[in-house]
Amino acid sequence: MTDTAPRASRHFEEELEHLKERLLVMAGGAEEQVRAAVQSLVDRDYALAERVLAGDAPINQLHLEIDERCFQLLALQQPMATDLRVVVSGVKINSDLERIGDFAVNIAEATLGYLEHPAVKPLIDIPRMAEIAQGMLRDALNAYVRQDMALAQEVLDRDDSLDHLKDQVFRELLSFMLSDPSVTEQSLDLILISRHLERIGDHATNIAEEAIFIVSGLDVRHHGQEGNAVRES
Amino acid sequence: MTDTAPRASRHFEEELEHLKERLLVMAGGAEEQVRAAVQSLVDRDYALAERVLAGDAPINQLHLEIDERCFQLLALQQPMATDLRVVVSGVKINSDLERIGDFAVNIAEATLGYLEHPAVKPLIDIPRMAEIAQGMLRDALNAYVRQDMALAQEVLDRDDSLDHLKDQVFRELLSFMLSDPSVTEQSLDLILISRHLERIGDHATNIAEEAIFIVSGLDVRHHGQEGNAVRES
Repeated sequence: MTDTAPRASRHFEEELEHLKERLLVMAGGAEEQVRAAVQSLVDRDYALAERVLAGDAPINQLHLEIDERCFQLLALQQPMATDLRVVVSGVKINSDLERIGDFAVNIAEATLGYLEHPAVKPLIDIPRMAEIAQGMLRDALNAYVRQDMALAQEVLDRDDSLDHLKDQVFRELLSFMLSDPSVTEQSLDLILISRHLERIGDHATNIAEEAIFIVSGLDVRHHGQEGNAVRES
Repeated sequence: MTDTAPRASRHFEEELEHLKERLLVMAGGAEEQVRAAVQSLVDRDYALAERVLAGDAPINQLHLEIDERCFQLLALQQPMATDLRVVVSGVKINSDLERIGDFAVNIAEATLGYLEHPAVKPLIDIPRMAEIAQGMLRDALNAYVRQDMALAQEVLDRDDSLDHLKDQVFRELLSFMLSDPSVTEQSLDLILISRHLERIGDHATNIAEEAIFIVSGLDVRHHGQEGNAVRES
């Protein structure tokens, strides 16, 4: 199968493009879920939070479809070298996207809890975290699809700002809780939401690392891990 | 490559066995990290928590090795049917195990924070959660290696008890914080630890689902998702 006929090869190229397209659709859906979940929090919009809960099903459907698509590509086309890397990375990226969809649901669930109480404070850092995480996700997918290493590296660089904001959210809410225990429940919901957003960034980072691996063969995972905090995932 | 010579076939079988062995080694390492992290919490043992932080590097090394092993199996052996499923599942299980290792580190980090303050309460539910999660992990891996569907199904059944304990831990600690804000920080650490343990159970569930998929071709993921809470992962 290493020496495929032109027709088979063109078919394979089409299949690979189709795989990338489906992953882009899934990433778009996951990003929209994250956006809507945080919007429902900011706007105190119950109905929107409920829509996010319902919106997970199409993403899960895509997860199964893409997994099967990758499997069929491996079984029937037996891709080699870079093409094989693209498909195997597709399997992993598909899992990352599915998790991101789950986190959007977790955020919507925490939002429904949060809305049962008066607001703690105007929300500034959490919407910023959401914006950063969504941008990372979008760029990571584009880096994979276009095999754009510079863009993938940019995604990796942005992960620190997300961790920093998460720590800031935590410290601020902790001080609120300590000075006024009546805001404890709401503060806990916001702390959990900030952690879900941080983990969405971690999954975007995974995707960017896969993109770098495909292009360079260079494995940037677990790089300089000594002395650094492990990514929470 | 569908009609492999006996020698190549035997070689492939050996490679597949070796892949499973390496995944078992990695799962054993991840389980030991989880056990040690929770032990450091229970025994208030700083040194042990620090050892867990250092103990992540060998797991990350195995993650890279196994990923490369799967890739080489796909590239050079072009496995078919069930064998292909075993290798593709190996890629996913490898990711799950690496995450479980990260959660052990997250638990050790939260433990180091927790130990800066007096204990909130005797720990009962969290060690129980750890025991359940470790058992799920062990059995999920064995189900994959032995292609044992009944064992995999048992793992899936145990996930609910973990979710239940997580909710119980949350409610109890929330009531502590509300009645005595001086225990807020310690309580937050324990809440986060219980969530890490719940997610370890989720990853064990993923592994069990892969085991079922290999044997039955039946995809039990996203089963009955309507109306159910999404697994936090």
